[in-house]
Amino acid sequence: MGRVQARTEAALDRLLPSAAIAPQRLHEAMRYAVLGGGKRIRPLLVFAAGEAGAAPGADPARLEILGCALECIHAYSLVHDDLPCMDDDVLRRGKPACHVEFDEATALLVGDSLQSLAFQLVSDHRVCNDPAVQVEMLKILAVACGSRGMAGGQAIDLASVGQTLTVPELEYMHIHKTGALIRAAVALGARASSALGAGQLERLDHYAKCVGLAFQVVDDVLDQESSTATLGKTVGKDAANNKPTYVSVLGLARAKVLAEELRKDAHEALASLAMPAQRLGDLADFIVLRKF
Amino acid sequence: MGRVQARTEAALDRLLPSAAIAPQRLHEAMRYAVLGGGKRIRPLLVFAAGEAGAAPGADPARLEILGCALECIHAYSLVHDDLPCMDDDVLRRGKPACHVEFDEATALLVGDSLQSLAFQLVSDHRVCNDPAVQVEMLKILAVACGSRGMAGGQAIDLASVGQTLTVPELEYMHIHKTGALIRAAVALGARASSALGAGQLERLDHYAKCVGLAFQVVDDVLDQESSTATLGKTVGKDAANNKPTYVSVLGLARAKVLAEELRKDAHEALASLAMPAQRLGDLADFIVLRKF
Repeated sequence: MGRVQARTEAALDRLLPSAAIAPQRLHEAMRYAVLGGGKRIRPLLVFAAGEAGAAPGADPARLEILGCALECIHAYSLVHDDLPCMDDDVLRRGKPACHVEFDEATALLVGDSLQSLAFQLVSDHRVCNDPAVQVEMLKILAVACGSRGMAGGQAIDLASVGQTLTVPELEYMHIHKTGALIRAAVALGARASSALGAGQLERLDHYAKCVGLAFQVVDDVLDQESSTATLGKTVGKDAANNKPTYVSVLGLARAKVLAEELRKDAHEALASLAMPAQRLGDLADFIVLRKF
Repeated sequence: MGRVQARTEAALDRLLPSAAIAPQRLHEAMRYAVLGGGKRIRPLLVFAAGEAGAAPGADPARLEILGCALECIHAYSLVHDDLPCMDDDVLRRGKPACHVEFDEATALLVGDSLQSLAFQLVSDHRVCNDPAVQVEMLKILAVACGSRGMAGGQAIDLASVGQTLTVPELEYMHIHKTGALIRAAVALGARASSALGAGQLERLDHYAKCVGLAFQVVDDVLDQESSTATLGKTVGKDAANNKPTYVSVLGLARAKVLAEELRKDAHEALASLAMPAQRLGDLADFIVLRKF
């Protein structure tokens, strides 16, 4: 997996505003929040989806920018989630959270600016040579981030504190909170190549939905079974905050079975594509079998 | 000015997610932050720029969506600016600020979601029938909102507390903080019609820069001369927070002269367009001569 991650890291370093440009402190904090950490799952999905189908697939220079845009959105959501008025966490990716290292006002603006930067990146002329597809990509990203996507999932998450949720309710929350951006990663990567028809895009979206949910289920399992040092973020936080998780709702054993079922579903969706999609399959495995 | 404002209000009511749709509380708070208040200067500028040139100008249905997108960005910036970690204000548009009426976490997500919604609106298929122009519009908006635009201006504003600024430094701050979005409003409106050439777009941008600065100068003057009841927001706040303003740097009399000079500059830029732009001229007058 190292190739895409190294490429993404280098591209982010280049595409984020330099800390030497005013406003320096804001740019320094944006770079702190985005660079040097994270599994880069979303860029991996962008590349895997862009490379599906017959070789050579989408131009890596395009996929790189899309992957960076998704990482900007992901990093913004983490910076805002860690703020005292939200999850109030001080540790992220093994480092002090952005508002701890800088200050709350700066962290707020970091998130706001990273969201704008993501849209700026997707509107870059290098992303696509069909502007109609590019507008579609921008719309997919905007819907995925908004009140009926990621931010809405976060709102449902906040409202769920102390509640007993059913499995469908928990699923609804995570399909929005984590799933929306993961689906957007696959959708944007797939649209960067012209290899896929409408039916295939739909089946890929089902793959992404399974992978997004599996990601969250495994997160909940790891939160129960791992240490803060391994994960680089505070473990047991959801339980301490009285938030429902797959483990609290299903129990550890059934949560693991669910993750395995979702992995199988994801592979079936890929098989139905009737085209090479090896890396997407590998990613489904990685997401479910990971230990961090 | 009533026509555009009423039209914008109705369109916002239609384009914002219903408070009956989940997550209800977030949608209710988004509507609270956007609807029923504000001068709607940015939609007015969108319409005036879109109607410049020979009749009939851009389709009002397009301008309406663009105006709403700019109001979503503007409202998001106000909601985040009012948060305790930023300006810590409790009053906005004559009502309790969003985080007071709801809570801080909800206000944070309201701002985040409104930013996404703005990009969703500008990527709407009704905005433009030339997708290349639409991608350009999305990029203009993203740059205007980001760390080298509005959010960056806010960061400079935060850093200026207790500082003595020169007039050029103050101008630099406001060109970003307020000016960036006002310029985007004019740029998007102008691109919604196909009446303007590249040279004219550049001269219109100079108009927008003057009007944006004038807006801030007049804001500072009104903040000194008006009451909280008239403005619907806390007056004298910048002075109390030890923030530099045009009045504190130039004095009241010279600030008024500057606003008048900027108004004249704006009119000269319009004259150089060599095409009808009556409403843009009226707006420059309104912005400088307003009493609220």
